[in-house]
Amino acid sequence: MYNVPSHNELQKIVELIRSIIFPDFFPATTQPEPLLKAMMLIQLSTVIDDAEEAKRITKEFCQSMPRIRALIEMDVDAAMHNDPAVASRAEVVYCYPLIRVMLHYRPAHCLYQLGVPLIPRMLTEMAHSETGIDIHPAAQIGDHFCIDHGTGVVIGETAIIGSHVVLYQGVTLGAKNFQYDEEGKPMNVPRHPIIEDNVTIYSNASVLGRIRIGHDTIVGGNIWLTHDVPPHSRVVQRPCDGIPPHNNVDVLNDK
Amino acid sequence: MYNVPSHNELQKIVELIRSIIFPDFFPATTQPEPLLKAMMLIQLSTVIDDAEEAKRITKEFCQSMPRIRALIEMDVDAAMHNDPAVASRAEVVYCYPLIRVMLHYRPAHCLYQLGVPLIPRMLTEMAHSETGIDIHPAAQIGDHFCIDHGTGVVIGETAIIGSHVVLYQGVTLGAKNFQYDEEGKPMNVPRHPIIEDNVTIYSNASVLGRIRIGHDTIVGGNIWLTHDVPPHSRVVQRPCDGIPPHNNVDVLNDK
Amino acid sequence: MYNVPSHNELQKIVELIRSIIFPDFFPATTQPEPLLKAMMLIQLSTVIDDAEEAKRITKEFCQSMPRIRALIEMDVDAAMHNDPAVASRAEVVYCYPLIRVMLHYRPAHCLYQLGVPLIPRMLTEMAHSETGIDIHPAAQIGDHFCIDHGTGVVIGETAIIGSHVVLYQGVTLGAKNFQYDEEGKPMNVPRHPIIEDNVTIYSNASVLGRIRIGHDTIVGGNIWLTHDVPPHSRVVQRPCDGIPPHNNVDVLNDK
Amino acid sequence: MYNVPSHNELQKIVELIRSIIFPDFFPATTQPEPLLKAMMLIQLSTVIDDAEEAKRITKEFCQSMPRIRALIEMDVDAAMHNDPAVASRAEVVYCYPLIRVMLHYRPAHCLYQLGVPLIPRMLTEMAHSETGIDIHPAAQIGDHFCIDHGTGVVIGETAIIGSHVVLYQGVTLGAKNFQYDEEGKPMNVPRHPIIEDNVTIYSNASVLGRIRIGHDTIVGGNIWLTHDVPPHSRVVQRPCDGIPPHNNVDVLNDK
Amino acid sequence: MYNVPSHNELQKIVELIRSIIFPDFFPATTQPEPLLKAMMLIQLSTVIDDAEEAKRITKEFCQSMPRIRALIEMDVDAAMHNDPAVASRAEVVYCYPLIRVMLHYRPAHCLYQLGVPLIPRMLTEMAHSETGIDIHPAAQIGDHFCIDHGTGVVIGETAIIGSHVVLYQGVTLGAKNFQYDEEGKPMNVPRHPIIEDNVTIYSNASVLGRIRIGHDTIVGGNIWLTHDVPPHSRVVQRPCDGIPPHNNVDVLNDK
Amino acid sequence: MYNVPSHNELQKIVELIRSIIFPDFFPATTQPEPLLKAMMLIQLSTVIDDAEEAKRITKEFCQSMPRIRALIEMDVDAAMHNDPAVASRAEVVYCYPLIRVMLHYRPAHCLYQLGVPLIPRMLTEMAHSETGIDIHPAAQIGDHFCIDHGTGVVIGETAIIGSHVVLYQGVTLGAKNFQYDEEGKPMNVPRHPIIEDNVTIYSNASVLGRIRIGHDTIVGGNIWLTHDVPPHSRVVQRPCDGIPPHNNVDVLNDK
Repeated sequence: MYNVPSHNELQKIVELIRSIIFPDFFPATTQPEPLLKAMMLIQLSTVIDDAEEAKRITKEFCQSMPRIRALIEMDVDAAMHNDPAVASRAEVVYCYPLIRVMLHYRPAHCLYQLGVPLIPRMLTEMAHSETGIDIHPAAQIGDHFCIDHGTGVVIGETAIIGSHVVLYQGVTLGAKNFQYDEEGKPMNVPRHPIIEDNVTIYSNASVLGRIRIGHDTIVGGNIWLTHDVPPHSRVVQRPCDGIPPHNNVDVLNDK
Repeated sequence: MYNVPSHNELQKIVELIRSIIFPDFFPATTQPEPLLKAMMLIQLSTVIDDAEEAKRITKEFCQSMPRIRALIEMDVDAAMHNDPAVASRAEVVYCYPLIRVMLHYRPAHCLYQLGVPLIPRMLTEMAHSETGIDIHPAAQIGDHFCIDHGTGVVIGETAIIGSHVVLYQGVTLGAKNFQYDEEGKPMNVPRHPIIEDNVTIYSNASVLGRIRIGHDTIVGGNIWLTHDVPPHSRVVQRPCDGIPPHNNVDVLNDK
Repeated sequence: MYNVPSHNELQKIVELIRSIIFPDFFPATTQPEPLLKAMMLIQLSTVIDDAEEAKRITKEFCQSMPRIRALIEMDVDAAMHNDPAVASRAEVVYCYPLIRVMLHYRPAHCLYQLGVPLIPRMLTEMAHSETGIDIHPAAQIGDHFCIDHGTGVVIGETAIIGSHVVLYQGVTLGAKNFQYDEEGKPMNVPRHPIIEDNVTIYSNASVLGRIRIGHDTIVGGNIWLTHDVPPHSRVVQRPCDGIPPHNNVDVLNDK
Repeated sequence: MYNVPSHNELQKIVELIRSIIFPDFFPATTQPEPLLKAMMLIQLSTVIDDAEEAKRITKEFCQSMPRIRALIEMDVDAAMHNDPAVASRAEVVYCYPLIRVMLHYRPAHCLYQLGVPLIPRMLTEMAHSETGIDIHPAAQIGDHFCIDHGTGVVIGETAIIGSHVVLYQGVTLGAKNFQYDEEGKPMNVPRHPIIEDNVTIYSNASVLGRIRIGHDTIVGGNIWLTHDVPPHSRVVQRPCDGIPPHNNVDVLNDK
Repeated sequence: MYNVPSHNELQKIVELIRSIIFPDFFPATTQPEPLLKAMMLIQLSTVIDDAEEAKRITKEFCQSMPRIRALIEMDVDAAMHNDPAVASRAEVVYCYPLIRVMLHYRPAHCLYQLGVPLIPRMLTEMAHSETGIDIHPAAQIGDHFCIDHGTGVVIGETAIIGSHVVLYQGVTLGAKNFQYDEEGKPMNVPRHPIIEDNVTIYSNASVLGRIRIGHDTIVGGNIWLTHDVPPHSRVVQRPCDGIPPHNNVDVLNDK
Repeated sequence: MYNVPSHNELQKIVELIRSIIFPDFFPATTQPEPLLKAMMLIQLSTVIDDAEEAKRITKEFCQSMPRIRALIEMDVDAAMHNDPAVASRAEVVYCYPLIRVMLHYRPAHCLYQLGVPLIPRMLTEMAHSETGIDIHPAAQIGDHFCIDHGTGVVIGETAIIGSHVVLYQGVTLGAKNFQYDEEGKPMNVPRHPIIEDNVTIYSNASVLGRIRIGHDTIVGGNIWLTHDVPPHSRVVQRPCDGIPPHNNVDVLNDK
């Protein structure tokens, strides 16, 4: 029997994790912890040959649940703090793409740190498919993380994100374009940005390359940013030739 | 037994609505109306404590079906009118993200108007997940509405959209960035744009703040628009320093 | 009995195709070829009245499987060649939106060429919903095609794409905005770009109209491109008034 | 769309009824009553053309639930009273074929009395398939009814059964064999037995024809009984030629 | 990949056959014939190594459908003719264990005749589980066959049954007990009865051994019959010592 | 959350056990042992309050798997030895009700011995529903057990069965009828038969009361047996008044 990680089983694992993290909102019909342990062990066994190693990783993963739960609860807090439209905690938990994606990314990142191949990426791609938010499992993301709307957000493999960071739809934390080595191919080195604490990045901004965005900074929408920014900055599009930022449009009245 | 709205049951409700609206394209194995009524009552009972109130809202919702059906039929007309690639009405009904999202948004907006908490947002987020189109259920959208492609479209809570409006992929009708109150937090006030009749907004344009886009206006792609526009306008990116709009790119030939 | 193409059955057909193309990664419990043939015939019969014609198309479609398989294997190669984060061939096959979308697009394009209505578009819209990548089945795409991340990518009906082309998230290969005929409606004529071999287009670039992007060209991110580009070009945003490209942002330090 | 009663939907209806009758043992995720009403109305509409009549019958059926619940609770009492092996009320509710069959028969009999065609027989045949107990929905069965083991029990269309009756596996309450009319075909007249209160019939006994078994009677196993029996009787197999009943076997020792 | 016949797939095959035979009662959502052909070929391939042979058998099996359909329609006729309780043809098709078992047995017998191993027995055991009627696929059964109630009926491997035969619940057409060869084991030789046309056998009768029951015979209930019976017979239990048949019971009145 | 044993989960547990016992015939997609352990622990936790006790029982149950596997393999051997119609080991494993019922009974008996309430009976009733064979989980059954056909077999709570025992359809190993205490109710004492090694009991025989059937005995069909039988016996129906056994039927020729 050829054993491969099962998309369906991974989906059930995420549902078990969801029941462990939000027992009031997603009540389980049974105690989810032992089932999580068994199902995770089985999936890990498809990608890890050493049975003892698979057991050890399963155990460490399950022991991380309280920490993952605490982090995701703080993500809910962040969503409530940053969106004027939110009506209740239930609305965030049931509806927000942020929470759906964090229920995949945070466990996936934990598995990535434990050295598990393939499965972490499968988990985050499942969330990508559901939410349009593409976070590489190797990316490091601090507490109180918030994404609003979220479709089109990309967070690359070596990105490092601090606490209390807010991203809007379409934000890319990517590798810098137009940067090539001699072979015409980007190398797998730290190549995505470092976002310090309390940074907010508005919709469709592209932050590219191994740059550092200092803490307490605001990056405006549609900005293409490829160099370091000091703390406490506001990054806005420079007016062309004296035109105030964001008003450089012509309105041609047909009448 | 802890009662919560059920994602699966809401999905079935949307499928019933789809069968009611498009009986030729999605034939139901049974009469969908009484089942819709019962299933909706059950879901409403999870968020509304007063049983009589839940019944009253269910009844009003079901009575709105003909109106919702008429609106979505007009959305199909709009899609057929605006896309040269469309081959048949069936193609729009079966394939277009617009129709999938309207089958969620229009009933959700009806429930929102009837004062139902949580469920309207769950419905529109289900469509967001499927289509990448994020419409807040409180937004007001007129007849003959059309979105083409659609991935990345965001329509905020207090947006007001007239008749015969066309949006392309990536369009944001959002709150204005860089606008803060003393506490550093946006207030829940009317903060999204008003789009009048017969407006077309091309891909990735951001229309932000409580501005008014006058009727019969065309907004070009990738525009960042934060102020009112009079009727019958064409909004294009202003050339920087004499460069014609949309040609401000350098082509550096390697040869 | 009213016969319509079935979304669920088409999903099963794609899973069969997946098992035929990647038998090691998605092992089938039975031989998938005869089941594919039967299920495809059934679906074709819902949109093609002539039974003999439906049989002939089914046969030709099934005979195309080896060619489609070869093309998708080359797409896997391309993904491995273009992403420094990729860890294994399995990761590409199991996780990459590119492969998920090609498993829909390439068979859909084959059916489109065979004259099948409706079903090709249903297939590509299923992939659009899963991946946020919207490819019209009539578009022509060469070998070694690669899309990274992909959310928001739009490839229009008459687009023609060569070999070894790489697209990033949010790239639009669309019809030109602001181009109207006398009736105020775009005509169904060749109106999407021709992308020659070895072109790379970075994130959120919009390439619009029946223009030709010459081979071995790089198009930078967020570019709005509406005219022909010769081979071996690098297309970058022109600096406004001497500001270097991609640095035309103001950093206003609050301190 | 051709409408027929749906086996799957009827199964769901029985599960709803089970949740209404045993809410502690089969907790429902939602309030089952309105869903039962809607689903039953839909199924009745497949066999009753007059919509008002279907509504009226649905209403009367739903109003019978408390009575059906009381009867089935008494059947549980009877099972506990008659089986020395029973360990708990839960065991009877979860495990006993008696309860599974009564959850089908008692609602089916109610529908039969309301004049519903086809569906009552479908319901009892579903129980027949699950339990091997074949009760015609037209049969009349009193309170505190008990069947032990049950495989092979047959209760015919015109049988009438009193209170506190106990049947064992293989008991037939059938039409009399060898009774024909001129056309060689049995007529649909009262042709099954009347079993008065407090009668126990042991395994594989056949009670045949429109006979009356008086109250407080015991019928022994493997009896073939085709004539009336007065109250307070014990019916046993008559010894052949002085052999005591049930010992008319030869033991031929091979040694 | 280890290939075994799949219980679930065989179940779907029977449902397809059911739709082909009773299109009005079990309408298919698609044309069932090509799907039946493909699914049957796949299942046959799990037990037949020669692909051409599997194809040939599939073709012959599918060509037998009209004959199987005609036979099962005649079984419905027989059920309507023999049961005074039947209300409509729909009731027989939807409810009668006879039809459920014939939908398994008749195709299974066809496959058995075509030399298919394992699958015929799996098909009849599925029906055994559902109905309590155990027919070996090798048994030969004529047209207008009827079983009433049916639980406990056993028809052995080498039984031969003519036309217009009626069996009641618990009838065994078995091998003779107490018949042994030198090794103490029954040999696989013709060892089950031959039942000629127009025979009726009442409930729980055991007809054992390679005997012949002549046409137009009635066998009474609970009979243990191990020798030939000439045509036009009525077989009843011999009275013990002058007691009339079926009245050899003592009624001991407690009063 | 109200926790009850889940019929569906128990079904999955039996399927896991089946994959452990017959890995060649029912290949598992994953390693079934850890999942069995986790799922069994969860189900046991619904009926056992002490978590440590639940863990201990789960462990002992899982350690019993090799012994249960060996016993069921011997049951397969017995079926192959006793049925002249069997064509292959696969046919027994896939088709025989005996194996289906043993896959429920043998684990259920193990759980019963470990003191688990409710679940053992649920497991055997699930098999009863599928096969018509009703075995109480407390009954003790030796190795090489065989039931042929099986519908209607009943094996009571305190029955004890040796090795190499064969039962045919309709055999009851029950409590004695007509035996009452002062309260008119049978007491829960040893009241079912003891069947020694190498006993064969033919169809529809009833063996009743705490009697002992000596080893190497054959009990004929339709026998009603209520007293001890010495080893090496053949039990047959005594002829009434000189009529040879099993020929006491009258054949009344109509001609």
